[in-house]
Amino acid sequence: MCSEFDIIRQYFTRPVTKAVLGVGDDAALISTTAEKELVIAVDTLVSGHHFFADTDPRQLGYKALAVNLSDMAAMGANPCWATLALTLPRNLIQKSEAWLDEFSAGFFELADTYQIELIGGDTTCGPLNISVQVIGEVEKGKALLRNGARPGDDIWISGHLGDAALALAHEQQQINLNPDELIQCLSALHAPIARIELGRRLINLAHSAIDISDGLMADLEHIVESSSVSATININEISCSSILRKYLSHPVAISCLLAGGDDYELCFTASVRNQKEIEELSLKLAIPLTRIGKITQGKGLTVLNSNGTAITLETRGYDHFRT
Amino acid sequence: MCSEFDIIRQYFTRPVTKAVLGVGDDAALISTTAEKELVIAVDTLVSGHHFFADTDPRQLGYKALAVNLSDMAAMGANPCWATLALTLPRNLIQKSEAWLDEFSAGFFELADTYQIELIGGDTTCGPLNISVQVIGEVEKGKALLRNGARPGDDIWISGHLGDAALALAHEQQQINLNPDELIQCLSALHAPIARIELGRRLINLAHSAIDISDGLMADLEHIVESSSVSATININEISCSSILRKYLSHPVAISCLLAGGDDYELCFTASVRNQKEIEELSLKLAIPLTRIGKITQGKGLTVLNSNGTAITLETRGYDHFRT
Repeated sequence: MCSEFDIIRQYFTRPVTKAVLGVGDDAALISTTAEKELVIAVDTLVSGHHFFADTDPRQLGYKALAVNLSDMAAMGANPCWATLALTLPRNLIQKSEAWLDEFSAGFFELADTYQIELIGGDTTCGPLNISVQVIGEVEKGKALLRNGARPGDDIWISGHLGDAALALAHEQQQINLNPDELIQCLSALHAPIARIELGRRLINLAHSAIDISDGLMADLEHIVESSSVSATININEISCSSILRKYLSHPVAISCLLAGGDDYELCFTASVRNQKEIEELSLKLAIPLTRIGKITQGKGLTVLNSNGTAITLETRGYDHFRT
Repeated sequence: MCSEFDIIRQYFTRPVTKAVLGVGDDAALISTTAEKELVIAVDTLVSGHHFFADTDPRQLGYKALAVNLSDMAAMGANPCWATLALTLPRNLIQKSEAWLDEFSAGFFELADTYQIELIGGDTTCGPLNISVQVIGEVEKGKALLRNGARPGDDIWISGHLGDAALALAHEQQQINLNPDELIQCLSALHAPIARIELGRRLINLAHSAIDISDGLMADLEHIVESSSVSATININEISCSSILRKYLSHPVAISCLLAGGDDYELCFTASVRNQKEIEELSLKLAIPLTRIGKITQGKGLTVLNSNGTAITLETRGYDHFRT
């Protein structure tokens, strides 16, 4: 059976003439005025796949928007409006509207932070399914894309990777975190911080960008393929929390770091000339920005361990349909 | 338990300042240039609620877009772009991709008719759920809204109502259509014609408009409430197919006509002065346009039968959550 990306490529990717950018990046681009482009992204969260059925609704409302804002960040866009297509099981609200109250509270808590207006949607009955679409704005021609990486670029990531996946691994009993560790990792899983301000500041600084949602390797591979380059990253350079570092020798930890996904950090490439400016940006925004490798000519993505040998993983990131 | 509209009103409706129009009409409006506004609508189809699980995927792809185009028509907008959030059960595509092939063929068949570009989306695994968002354009300040009906206006509908609901009633064994009748009614159910051209031509001609998706009474009530007026319609005036007319004495037929939904025709109000022009438009577009009643001052919607007495129905249209 084909993968999620094969499905998109084969059945839902068509060239565009009216839009500036269609299917294939973190968001689409539509030209509206002489100065701006609209940035349009949509993400779906499905119960049992993206979240456990008993997830706190407030966290769910927050995250349903947060994952989209991460796409906005990856484009360097300022988010402005959202629509919400919410499918709810009848039994969820039959006895009490508390679930709805909490869900909408979580959603608007994040929306209000960025002055995002909820302008439309649809409310239907069925298995729990949440599709949020966000519309943002970016200066014309300046959106960060996946296809701009150039040989010689540094590869950077923001924040720390792996904690969200570690929480999931704990819930799936693949690893045993202590209570404090679990609290921190669950916070990463449920309340990712979308790097909106960072994305905006990377315009004119980065050559390409993507948000790490499926997993570092899977997502960096999108940049590599779109830009027709190759990339080498060093596992030792990848910033992670002290928790994940503690478990690094555990079989599941490397997988969480490289392919766990749900990080919602940015991975971007930039000219070596911009290293200093990016380091200053890191201080200014108080966000760790870490160089983890280089873009080179060629094809493919290589991850080196401390011995300088290549690491191979069974999966490089989440794909809904790949067997 | 509250209704679908109570849910939207209580938990997801907030005033907007940046958008021109937020939640509450067939679509939202965003101002982009001095001349145009963007029109944004989203609709979800859920297996087992909007369609039978074994519905032909080509028809489904077509209809998933068609229901959104109907919202565009109701705003007088020209549809330009779409996004598709598709949640698929693994078993649907595990053995063969034929379902995807057919679904996308149906979707693009309609998209190509209107030169609509699919610019983004999300593909996820789970119970079948299809959310399509369409972005269109309308001349600034000219969108047809629900709140513009004025006392003295004629109430009009396009096409014929009730056939889609009749097909559904047959499938649910509430009525027994003969094979030819069933074919025609199923065609109305599966392949509604979005009244895009009509919607565009009603700009400057109609005072208000809505598309009939939940049911004539339920949808006309939205106009009535938004416009703070009352409305009286005459059941005898409501245009229907010869099939539905044949079954008018059947208990379920009146319900199909007035509250069945899935018609995707337009209901609009206009000044009596525009009657002639609307009748000429009907001829030009070869679409039946029928006057069915009047807008008056006051509150509420009344449907009169041939005796002049008011008809009451148990439900006035589809609502996902109303018990």
